[in-house]
Amino acid sequence: MVRVGIIGASGYAGAELVRYLLGHAGARVTYLASDTYAGRPLADAFPSFLGQDLPDCETYDAEIAAERSDVVFQAQGNGVGMRVAPELLEFGKKLIDIPADFRLKDLSEYKRFYGADHTAPQLAAEAVYGIPELRADEIAGARLVANPGCYATGAILALAPLVWSKLADLRSIVIDSKSGVSGAGRSKLEVSGLFCEVNEGIKAYAVGGHRHTPEIEQELSALAGERLIVSFTPHLVPMNRGILTTAYAGVGSGAASTGDLLALYRDFYSGKPFVAVLDEGGQPNTKSVFGTNFCHIGVSLDERAGRAIVTCAIDNMGKGAAGQAVQNMNLMCGFEQSTGLVCAAVFP
Amino acid sequence: MVRVGIIGASGYAGAELVRYLLGHAGARVTYLASDTYAGRPLADAFPSFLGQDLPDCETYDAEIAAERSDVVFQAQGNGVGMRVAPELLEFGKKLIDIPADFRLKDLSEYKRFYGADHTAPQLAAEAVYGIPELRADEIAGARLVANPGCYATGAILALAPLVWSKLADLRSIVIDSKSGVSGAGRSKLEVSGLFCEVNEGIKAYAVGGHRHTPEIEQELSALAGERLIVSFTPHLVPMNRGILTTAYAGVGSGAASTGDLLALYRDFYSGKPFVAVLDEGGQPNTKSVFGTNFCHIGVSLDERAGRAIVTCAIDNMGKGAAGQAVQNMNLMCGFEQSTGLVCAAVFP
Amino acid sequence: MVRVGIIGASGYAGAELVRYLLGHAGARVTYLASDTYAGRPLADAFPSFLGQDLPDCETYDAEIAAERSDVVFQAQGNGVGMRVAPELLEFGKKLIDIPADFRLKDLSEYKRFYGADHTAPQLAAEAVYGIPELRADEIAGARLVANPGCYATGAILALAPLVWSKLADLRSIVIDSKSGVSGAGRSKLEVSGLFCEVNEGIKAYAVGGHRHTPEIEQELSALAGERLIVSFTPHLVPMNRGILTTAYAGVGSGAASTGDLLALYRDFYSGKPFVAVLDEGGQPNTKSVFGTNFCHIGVSLDERAGRAIVTCAIDNMGKGAAGQAVQNMNLMCGFEQSTGLVCAAVFP
Amino acid sequence: MVRVGIIGASGYAGAELVRYLLGHAGARVTYLASDTYAGRPLADAFPSFLGQDLPDCETYDAEIAAERSDVVFQAQGNGVGMRVAPELLEFGKKLIDIPADFRLKDLSEYKRFYGADHTAPQLAAEAVYGIPELRADEIAGARLVANPGCYATGAILALAPLVWSKLADLRSIVIDSKSGVSGAGRSKLEVSGLFCEVNEGIKAYAVGGHRHTPEIEQELSALAGERLIVSFTPHLVPMNRGILTTAYAGVGSGAASTGDLLALYRDFYSGKPFVAVLDEGGQPNTKSVFGTNFCHIGVSLDERAGRAIVTCAIDNMGKGAAGQAVQNMNLMCGFEQSTGLVCAAVFP
Repeated sequence: MVRVGIIGASGYAGAELVRYLLGHAGARVTYLASDTYAGRPLADAFPSFLGQDLPDCETYDAEIAAERSDVVFQAQGNGVGMRVAPELLEFGKKLIDIPADFRLKDLSEYKRFYGADHTAPQLAAEAVYGIPELRADEIAGARLVANPGCYATGAILALAPLVWSKLADLRSIVIDSKSGVSGAGRSKLEVSGLFCEVNEGIKAYAVGGHRHTPEIEQELSALAGERLIVSFTPHLVPMNRGILTTAYAGVGSGAASTGDLLALYRDFYSGKPFVAVLDEGGQPNTKSVFGTNFCHIGVSLDERAGRAIVTCAIDNMGKGAAGQAVQNMNLMCGFEQSTGLVCAAVFP
Repeated sequence: MVRVGIIGASGYAGAELVRYLLGHAGARVTYLASDTYAGRPLADAFPSFLGQDLPDCETYDAEIAAERSDVVFQAQGNGVGMRVAPELLEFGKKLIDIPADFRLKDLSEYKRFYGADHTAPQLAAEAVYGIPELRADEIAGARLVANPGCYATGAILALAPLVWSKLADLRSIVIDSKSGVSGAGRSKLEVSGLFCEVNEGIKAYAVGGHRHTPEIEQELSALAGERLIVSFTPHLVPMNRGILTTAYAGVGSGAASTGDLLALYRDFYSGKPFVAVLDEGGQPNTKSVFGTNFCHIGVSLDERAGRAIVTCAIDNMGKGAAGQAVQNMNLMCGFEQSTGLVCAAVFP
Repeated sequence: MVRVGIIGASGYAGAELVRYLLGHAGARVTYLASDTYAGRPLADAFPSFLGQDLPDCETYDAEIAAERSDVVFQAQGNGVGMRVAPELLEFGKKLIDIPADFRLKDLSEYKRFYGADHTAPQLAAEAVYGIPELRADEIAGARLVANPGCYATGAILALAPLVWSKLADLRSIVIDSKSGVSGAGRSKLEVSGLFCEVNEGIKAYAVGGHRHTPEIEQELSALAGERLIVSFTPHLVPMNRGILTTAYAGVGSGAASTGDLLALYRDFYSGKPFVAVLDEGGQPNTKSVFGTNFCHIGVSLDERAGRAIVTCAIDNMGKGAAGQAVQNMNLMCGFEQSTGLVCAAVFP
Repeated sequence: MVRVGIIGASGYAGAELVRYLLGHAGARVTYLASDTYAGRPLADAFPSFLGQDLPDCETYDAEIAAERSDVVFQAQGNGVGMRVAPELLEFGKKLIDIPADFRLKDLSEYKRFYGADHTAPQLAAEAVYGIPELRADEIAGARLVANPGCYATGAILALAPLVWSKLADLRSIVIDSKSGVSGAGRSKLEVSGLFCEVNEGIKAYAVGGHRHTPEIEQELSALAGERLIVSFTPHLVPMNRGILTTAYAGVGSGAASTGDLLALYRDFYSGKPFVAVLDEGGQPNTKSVFGTNFCHIGVSLDERAGRAIVTCAIDNMGKGAAGQAVQNMNLMCGFEQSTGLVCAAVFP
């Protein structure tokens, strides 16, 4: 039984990790760190855990975390990972960092987008960007995995086959993403997060400058074999969960039909248990992956415009955060990728 | 491995049964009947099942159902249960009927509320009303279980301790229930079910005459040891799932404090794994039981008015339908009550 | 042209007052006080006012407010009214106080529910509780009107005919209210108000002790001619606006049919332009009064239980706050009650 | 007083026309045609009209419509306009057609996208495409106006300055639109429109082939002075109203900064009362135009990618349908453009 510790247990991502791990046959939650709920059961933060067998929350302490855990998930926030990683790795633990500390290889990009110097540059170099569909072997051998951003996961999965295959015109990529609002987390209290302000409205934000842009470009550039630049626009949709990514890329005369594109996508994702490429004409709905680690992809060729239009639905808390983190843990610990992750979406 | 058949697999309750059973260690879905989707995978009706290992849907046939299943859930609709029950029981199968056919013992009430004569009166007499918290032993010995109505489940669990203990003034009971709209099902296409008509509004319906009233009265009367009458008002709330029941009952000077009531409720529900009685001042939220078989109960004494106010949150598709049906199956088949049902709610 | 000043313009109630007054033929907004937005256009707080001709916000100053306004609405918060009322009335202005300062005549109740001593007891005695359907003449002659609470408005309108007519058993009254969340306002930032925490859930709160209870009892007792006590339970529903009140009262053999009750209600509300009593079987939906000052009422007799069940839909920001405040202003200033208030609901 | 007739009064667009016209100082609704509600008050279809002074609905009859109306809005559906237009124009009436019959000049496109031959080609040639910001003079002189599609309105307003100014690379245009679901109307009963199926999900539809594509291209090509092709992808968002259009267009080195683009947009829309161009960094929210005829536009230059990203919020029932139709009527009848349309959005 793998013993799991979670830092930031009382946040949304922390709670979602606990939820997945309660159904994991090979892992058990043995340590929960939360400053806000130290000394109290997690059910005080989330009554959805009433009746579950879980340790109480406590203030984070590296030694205790290391003593009680084999694997640690850091889900507290940006900047925490580079503080806790050196000691936890020193103790011989495996660490999966949900926030952004170890995602970017170019630390000048890190500074530009996160406004701080990186204090653990060697670990940033060592960390593996954890999208199992693209880097399963590296993840399996890693002791430090940077869990991808939610938007980045959707965008990369939507476009990976197109850029890898050289079909996409690398100067033409537009990524328009629509997200539920749980991505903002539970601790950020702003007027803009109130129910009344979100409900019955949709808006874009961070146009031209969202923090997930550099990781999208880093990973797609790696697949393309050359540096590319994308336009990425995130939007907030009045729903709790889910990201729908609509990605556009010129394909010129490289694809003759939607069928050609579908063949490429099916081939690329063959054998990947969490990616389903829909039949021609099918369009993914975030509802169908709600609460899961699945990713549904729809592919179309806009023949008149010579442009591929790819839509990709994930749960931002699942494949976009905690689900993918557990999938990474499975690889790092030698489980089947899908252990604890095969439940179907709650629908409707 | 218990082999499970589901009639009405392409409805919401059918799909929810499949979802729970996919995570059940001792049962496997081996037969799915759906007229609409006969010959097609269930994922055509619910893409949330893409990638799951399930039999295709087929047109219902009693012999095939009996051949492939040990237990059958009937989730298709009112009137179907009394048609299929005789033959399935004849084949020696166990049957759990989700709709209303076998809930009422007084068949004149059945006729009054459902507008039809009952064609299997002996089975109606035999069937056990399946609330495991109240009738576990009977359910364990039954071959035919009538799964309770969603509103009825919430109302009965909210009031059972009060009427059983004789604390409640039996002439004073008011039950005000608020439900998400999935209870209406997927096949009923009416303007009133459209998103635009439901969203941003709340209304009562069937005031003074809802079909769940007689089963609430039947079961609470049985607990009280005398015939009682309630006022029951259901409301539609713009959310997919969940029923919050707010129950009011005069308790005169029978309870001195909220603490007295809490002690009664805790005692009554002691050892029941799916009922959590909240601490004083706690109020259940349907979100906290979303997608689960749990029931959260809050208890207050309105001292000025001499009235107990009990609030009870369930998922209408979980404890109010498919979850409770699986709990009943567990009892009927000798599993632990909680097998396959311990997952925590998807939150937020 | 009546010149109108608003204190607390950047809150939800303030903005709603502005919205109504922009369509008022006899009044003009000439003064807007907001600490947060002082020196800025109101459209910075609410882009919905872009393009409208409005004065900029400024820090409240009694002399300036008095100089620029004939009537002042105080919409900033509890405790502000008793601070500003003495000076504004001294300047000869009319004042409509939206929060709770002047609603209760029994100032020990005020202290008990609002936790503070009242600093303007004479004005509390003088103020008129502003439900135009019940106190039109008093309002017309008043210089200080206490605008009723949103829940209180719904509850009083639902029950007034029953208690006034002596039909209701005064010991049997249960009021179960369901509200959208805009009532919490824009300035209160708590986790419980976040979209993700509200969406897809319903819960009760303040059970047995909500602050609107004493004003409901004060006004219904006045109508009944004797002191009554109610059980009042508010609930939060995942929608922005609207309150549905479901009120229960024993009527014994006093009413033989729903038709009898309907006749009473129609008679009582005859000539009241904002109250519509629905036909038998009709149930009000808060959607149908969204954004308006209207009140829709449905009346049923639960014959088996001897209980009247009355449902009442208002917009908590309209008839429950700003709409009723403008209706009060109309009476105080000699306009038709309905001036500026006749728009139909935005539907769907 | 202009007398107004509405065909299709019991649909969403019909009801929205009535709502706007109830507040119009120079027009009065004198004729309502609805097959479904013939002989009944419109409040039977929409209780939001209870208490309003309106004629009853009746079955459409050209002579009666002509006798009672000076202007007629056709809001019933596609294919109705070309049936009623010839006779109503013959009677000397002005007609505003809300559906698609008269929007396209190229009738082969009409046939391709709407699957039928056009039966009034001369009127299709005569009709004016009614976006007042672009064709005010033509509209003022027209007897037949084709009201634009909701998506088309948002897309055209978002991109008009860019294509008119020749800044946009005409081969690079991507239009990604997100709509509330009222656009589907009230009469189309499909599973996909049920609350439970829409709530908590987002999906694209009609990818690469939506019917509004040809009118977007027709109008933008006219502005550009040459034929252009766009990729247009509509999405359904779980909200009742609103369309947010996110439009992308390469601008190469044609614009040096967001400020340059803003200057262009401000100049282009100068003097247009319903279009507000937001300050740099501002992003429009559909909530802020909910229930109104306003259009809010945000403009950004993605400098790294050399692409303009323009966001545009309208209410699909307001500027996208009934509001714009009334604006067109105002021009056709000699009123101020904004008569009856200046109300602020209901917020929150």
